[in-house]
Amino acid sequence: MKRKSAGKRALKEIDGRVEKSKQAVLAATFELLVKLGLSGVSVDAVSRRSGVAKTTIYRHWPSREALLMEACAQFKSSLPVPNTGSLKGDLEALANEVVARLQHSSSTVMPSIIDVAERNEELAALQAEIHAQTREPLVTVIGRAQQRRELAHNQDPRELIACILGPLLYRRFFSREPLDQALAKRIVERALGKSK
Amino acid sequence: MKRKSAGKRALKEIDGRVEKSKQAVLAATFELLVKLGLSGVSVDAVSRRSGVAKTTIYRHWPSREALLMEACAQFKSSLPVPNTGSLKGDLEALANEVVARLQHSSSTVMPSIIDVAERNEELAALQAEIHAQTREPLVTVIGRAQQRRELAHNQDPRELIACILGPLLYRRFFSREPLDQALAKRIVERALGKSK
Repeated sequence: MKRKSAGKRALKEIDGRVEKSKQAVLAATFELLVKLGLSGVSVDAVSRRSGVAKTTIYRHWPSREALLMEACAQFKSSLPVPNTGSLKGDLEALANEVVARLQHSSSTVMPSIIDVAERNEELAALQAEIHAQTREPLVTVIGRAQQRRELAHNQDPRELIACILGPLLYRRFFSREPLDQALAKRIVERALGKSK
Repeated sequence: MKRKSAGKRALKEIDGRVEKSKQAVLAATFELLVKLGLSGVSVDAVSRRSGVAKTTIYRHWPSREALLMEACAQFKSSLPVPNTGSLKGDLEALANEVVARLQHSSSTVMPSIIDVAERNEELAALQAEIHAQTREPLVTVIGRAQQRRELAHNQDPRELIACILGPLLYRRFFSREPLDQALAKRIVERALGKSK
């Protein structure tokens, strides 16, 4: 019995070390992504930055692409669904969350993903998932507002969402103008037809 | 005199050939940009595709970056300024032009430029010029509408523009949903607060 549990402990230790090196590789990959964009990240550079040998990296990920995909998957995190009691309040809360994410340094990786997604099906699928996760809570609060008849049922939620996420993404990536909560509020008001 | 004019003719011929090879290089670069994005284009590939020797390419452009910059500068073309008599009509006409450009295959290069612009000052300057050229006619028609008091002077033209260009760019690059003139019209109406 004793030997068995010692063996288990040893295995657990190895598992822990494996997990730790995987996390170090993913963290290094993510840092390089933020610094250089997708096209700038090589397995060599990840190995140098993480201190994990290339052979070990390739044991966990069959290719550079697989590693990049897993590192980029970190963007697939849902926004919390607010419940302020009004559609305007919910959309403002979500728009503020999006602004906070766009103000984070990691947002710089987004155009890399979009760029590669134009020509690579796997990345396009990942980009679609990231987008769906961002959009989901907006779909939820709009659906709720339509159920309680705060918003007409003939309003297309996807168009309303385009008129909220679109201007925010445009300011961050295309016009490179400042983004703040006051602007997010005005964009939501305009999208809902409640601006002056 | 005869010799001189023969010399001029010869020079003109050389100029013509130089110009022709420059155009062939730029065309090949642009085709590769559309196919592969910025990071995929090498001087080797441009040389193979254009049939122009690498040494000749480097005679015209000191670096790969300089060549890419000139090829990308082709995106710096202004939209025509419409004059339909109403702000809504003018903005709809411009939104339709933007939709047509986004539907063109060359729009696939845009995320490449945006991506590199995140980390490269020269590309960021070029991206800002491309954006300014796209935005300029919108600024013009909004300014005219404010002069004839069709639009309040306290409306920030840049925010109104964000609410028109933003949703269109979002549908093309982020949600990858269809774009058409009917949608462009509804986006303009919503931005102007004239939607139901």
